Amino acid sequence: MMTKKIILDCDPGHDDAIAILLAHGNPEIELLAVTTVVGNQTLPKVTRNALAVARIAGITGVPFAAGADRPLVRTIENAPDIHGESGMDGPVLPEPSIELDSRHAVDLIIDTIMAHEPGEITLVPTGGLTNIALAARKEPRIVERVKEVVLMGGGYHVGNWSAVAEFNIKIDPEAAHIVFNESWPVVMVGLDLTHQALATPEVVEKVQAVGTKPAQFVVELLEFFGITYKDAQGFDSPPVHDPCAVAYVIDPTIVQTVKVPIDIELTGTLTLGMTVADFRAPAPDDCTTWAATTLDADRFWDLIIDALNNIGEVEL
Amino acid sequence: MMTKKIILDCDPGHDDAIAILLAHGNPEIELLAVTTVVGNQTLPKVTRNALAVARIAGITGVPFAAGADRPLVRTIENAPDIHGESGMDGPVLPEPSIELDSRHAVDLIIDTIMAHEPGEITLVPTGGLTNIALAARKEPRIVERVKEVVLMGGGYHVGNWSAVAEFNIKIDPEAAHIVFNESWPVVMVGLDLTHQALATPEVVEKVQAVGTKPAQFVVELLEFFGITYKDAQGFDSPPVHDPCAVAYVIDPTIVQTVKVPIDIELTGTLTLGMTVADFRAPAPDDCTTWAATTLDADRFWDLIIDALNNIGEVEL
Amino acid sequence: MMTKKIILDCDPGHDDAIAILLAHGNPEIELLAVTTVVGNQTLPKVTRNALAVARIAGITGVPFAAGADRPLVRTIENAPDIHGESGMDGPVLPEPSIELDSRHAVDLIIDTIMAHEPGEITLVPTGGLTNIALAARKEPRIVERVKEVVLMGGGYHVGNWSAVAEFNIKIDPEAAHIVFNESWPVVMVGLDLTHQALATPEVVEKVQAVGTKPAQFVVELLEFFGITYKDAQGFDSPPVHDPCAVAYVIDPTIVQTVKVPIDIELTGTLTLGMTVADFRAPAPDDCTTWAATTLDADRFWDLIIDALNNIGEVEL
Amino acid sequence: MMTKKIILDCDPGHDDAIAILLAHGNPEIELLAVTTVVGNQTLPKVTRNALAVARIAGITGVPFAAGADRPLVRTIENAPDIHGESGMDGPVLPEPSIELDSRHAVDLIIDTIMAHEPGEITLVPTGGLTNIALAARKEPRIVERVKEVVLMGGGYHVGNWSAVAEFNIKIDPEAAHIVFNESWPVVMVGLDLTHQALATPEVVEKVQAVGTKPAQFVVELLEFFGITYKDAQGFDSPPVHDPCAVAYVIDPTIVQTVKVPIDIELTGTLTLGMTVADFRAPAPDDCTTWAATTLDADRFWDLIIDALNNIGEVEL
Repeated sequence: MMTKKIILDCDPGHDDAIAILLAHGNPEIELLAVTTVVGNQTLPKVTRNALAVARIAGITGVPFAAGADRPLVRTIENAPDIHGESGMDGPVLPEPSIELDSRHAVDLIIDTIMAHEPGEITLVPTGGLTNIALAARKEPRIVERVKEVVLMGGGYHVGNWSAVAEFNIKIDPEAAHIVFNESWPVVMVGLDLTHQALATPEVVEKVQAVGTKPAQFVVELLEFFGITYKDAQGFDSPPVHDPCAVAYVIDPTIVQTVKVPIDIELTGTLTLGMTVADFRAPAPDDCTTWAATTLDADRFWDLIIDALNNIGEVEL
Repeated sequence: MMTKKIILDCDPGHDDAIAILLAHGNPEIELLAVTTVVGNQTLPKVTRNALAVARIAGITGVPFAAGADRPLVRTIENAPDIHGESGMDGPVLPEPSIELDSRHAVDLIIDTIMAHEPGEITLVPTGGLTNIALAARKEPRIVERVKEVVLMGGGYHVGNWSAVAEFNIKIDPEAAHIVFNESWPVVMVGLDLTHQALATPEVVEKVQAVGTKPAQFVVELLEFFGITYKDAQGFDSPPVHDPCAVAYVIDPTIVQTVKVPIDIELTGTLTLGMTVADFRAPAPDDCTTWAATTLDADRFWDLIIDALNNIGEVEL
Repeated sequence: MMTKKIILDCDPGHDDAIAILLAHGNPEIELLAVTTVVGNQTLPKVTRNALAVARIAGITGVPFAAGADRPLVRTIENAPDIHGESGMDGPVLPEPSIELDSRHAVDLIIDTIMAHEPGEITLVPTGGLTNIALAARKEPRIVERVKEVVLMGGGYHVGNWSAVAEFNIKIDPEAAHIVFNESWPVVMVGLDLTHQALATPEVVEKVQAVGTKPAQFVVELLEFFGITYKDAQGFDSPPVHDPCAVAYVIDPTIVQTVKVPIDIELTGTLTLGMTVADFRAPAPDDCTTWAATTLDADRFWDLIIDALNNIGEVEL
Repeated sequence: MMTKKIILDCDPGHDDAIAILLAHGNPEIELLAVTTVVGNQTLPKVTRNALAVARIAGITGVPFAAGADRPLVRTIENAPDIHGESGMDGPVLPEPSIELDSRHAVDLIIDTIMAHEPGEITLVPTGGLTNIALAARKEPRIVERVKEVVLMGGGYHVGNWSAVAEFNIKIDPEAAHIVFNESWPVVMVGLDLTHQALATPEVVEKVQAVGTKPAQFVVELLEFFGITYKDAQGFDSPPVHDPCAVAYVIDPTIVQTVKVPIDIELTGTLTLGMTVADFRAPAPDDCTTWAATTLDADRFWDLIIDALNNIGEVEL
């Protein structure tokens, strides 16, 4: 089987953690690197969380590197209301057992892409796009070598950090503008899609039934996430955003998309950071952006369960 | 029966013409005044069109007045691609038989509102909001005297003059900002709703079957409108926007609405003139804006047919 | 002698009051109307102040009318730190002895201009430009009938309400945009100029020496103004802005100007309401804007003293 | 003598070339690195020009590295009207004799700063600020290690790329926003200052009199620069911007400055990229920005002549 090589750029984050587990546990994905970026919490916190997830999932041999500690232009915004003070509140986190790569995330991303053939690597950002934007500006040649950028962020008709903007995009809209306007294919797995990935009690029960420590970790993540999403945004069950991007890479038939021009609003008073999609006409031939529309939620959760089963038990 | 008193502020415009006919022909509506504003075409053209419609519909005793010949701040944009060079291309228009009121539209609006009891008059703007904004600024007391503003314009998820903005709002976003931010109730009958009011061949056939000159006039409007909407925006059948606002006034059960905060984007590069609706949470108690969501299209077209039947034959 | 007919649109305001006195007392000026607009204080306050000044100066036979009570688009900003709670703190104000004109200021402006020959009337706005903008939009024909607009406001290198914007422009930038972009000649008497019109102790002494009640009124205005300008902006002597515009109308050799394209910034985060002047090249032939640069301060204050002498004693 | 260690980040560019010569020829400056950035021309062109200047000036042992080939967010703007197609039209350029450093400019900047003690190195950017911004974001620790950033760019009362914005800032305003808002001291040597550094015929004559090949190179640069500045901006003698920043580092008494808060406008329609300085009050204690105001032009040109004399003859 031809695996799909990805670099996961994330800010764990409850759903980022599940995205890491899915990427690690799914046999079609080859996880080349995990990089971290400020977002759900500060860079030190999300980096420590990423390393803790590595230990929980038994990930070895994959470089982890820390990246940008603040957005390009704007001041830092974190999301403690959703992710808690640690950025991954809920489970008790183990001490990390692997070391960070000595390189900056931007250089790890660049080096990894340049060391592979064009078209081999998919970038999967699930946080703000600061690292990806910096990498594209520092080494422009990565743009044509990347297969595609499948990102969790944005939304064409749904916002969560303002009426019409989503957190990952709004915290660094200039970085998003850079990423969406480069010539690489961009698949936006936004809130329109991820609000279909709800961790209902039935889902949590299935995860619990896996019966391993990593599964228990996911259960505890989902329980905390469920409470904050209920309190902060009124959701009955929390939307588990980030693994949806990984799921699209694994099997695009699980996440339907539509080709549509998308650009980032940088000057709007009410619309800063909006991912403006133009649905007025069929996308022009030179359009390089896609928006995720419809999730096959059952198959999505099956992927999560399968990944946990593949990971099996992990001793801490 | 208690009639509903309205002032129709419009820029005919094919669908504006049908809105006038509906307001005139429906027994529940008392049409107090018709005012014109630059929009679909220049002020002289839309004013002449309004007077021609008055003759076609046999409207007498209703003051017609001309208003703003340009938007508040922006330069003029018209829509000849949709409405033709005359602003109402298609039918042969008769010479008007009534005279314009000597007052400026803004003063006619103010005088009419101030001459009625608070809560009596509904404003129904179906063009840019320049006149309404000027009236609110010149005579602030009208704001609390108006029952509500039921306007055709905007859209929470649909745009036509940019990816996310609608023509009536985008040509004078500052005026829209004034209207949406005043304390009167505003019902936005936007593209989300009006794109459900499609003049299908079956609809056109029913109008034709009325068999009068005014009905024939509507048929010719719809035929021209069908061609331009097909060419310019790819519609199979043209959306007949403006009468939807009148229909809401006649019978709110035909046009479902949701209470939601709506504001106008004035500085966005990609989003100028967007009607930004915030659906993230239940509308707060002090919210004064509603968005139209779902049209009962059958009953809507029945209203149009009934109005034409009520108008009956009109000799030119 | 051919007099210069002006309409003074103001928001008294200490320096507005002195502008009224200068316009009334100078024999070259024929004061056709005084209109008021929200600004230094609320509309009721500045209107009452204008009427009080009329009584103090013995002005009769000139219509006074109230205009806009808020800016076009923005929320109200007043300047109590400079002008006090009444808008004209310091002197004890008499009860007005004349009645307001029943017309809205916008209609008084329009009627007065349309009743005169083209080129006869100079508009002299010394507050926010809301009334002037509304008049230009309600009756576009005034634009070519007005001789010129000589306004106090803005500044090409000096700001006071932000780093680069002046109060009169910044409180209603959309109105300013309308006025500066119309085809009439606009002379911007801005802070660059008015910060040369300082009411030094010597100036105050000369005013005092006139020895009349109106002169005493001016002294008390300047004393209060001196304190607030010292406290709020660190001036040793207060700049007396508004009469500079009247002085320019009386004698353009007292206020040097340069022809330069000027436009109003409407979207800047740091620069909202800036009067952006483009000095990079000689002004193009179609340029209709001028900026005041250099004041002959001695002759300016002589005009004030002369006007007070001409007014003479006024019994209250 | 304690030398002043600088990194020169530039986009040669006629005046950049003279800045390199001044930095190389002045005994108080230790030139640690030269980095290039897109600006006056494309990155390949300005990089090649920098290497050519190294050969002309006989610079060896100093690393030269290429940096960003486009601004952070905006599309590329170059200035061929001022600098010609090559970016340094006029003189015949020799083939470079040194190799580029293999590192990206951003890494050379970071490595150099981190290898020195805090407070040792002054950054001297004379082009767009893309490289400096990227370096500050990739390695935030450089910010407190840099002594100060002395940049040519901006202007508090003068623009050249718009009415109120200067080329280096306007081509990458987001990068400028990053640099001006970091905690390091920033000295803005802007157009207010550099328009005092005019290469008059007397100046050119003095340079010519040095009688060396490098001096002849400068003469040819100034002759071309004189023609384009005359044609494009109407200058009688061209302003030689970039060496003014180096001159300030050499001797701050030659370039007077004032401490004033400066920020970058990112959203203005007319003011994008303006360096907004707030002169309304004394700068607050935490202000970290200075603006250059007055040049001692005689001593400035003496520095240039001295540097050329120090460089002496260089054989190609």
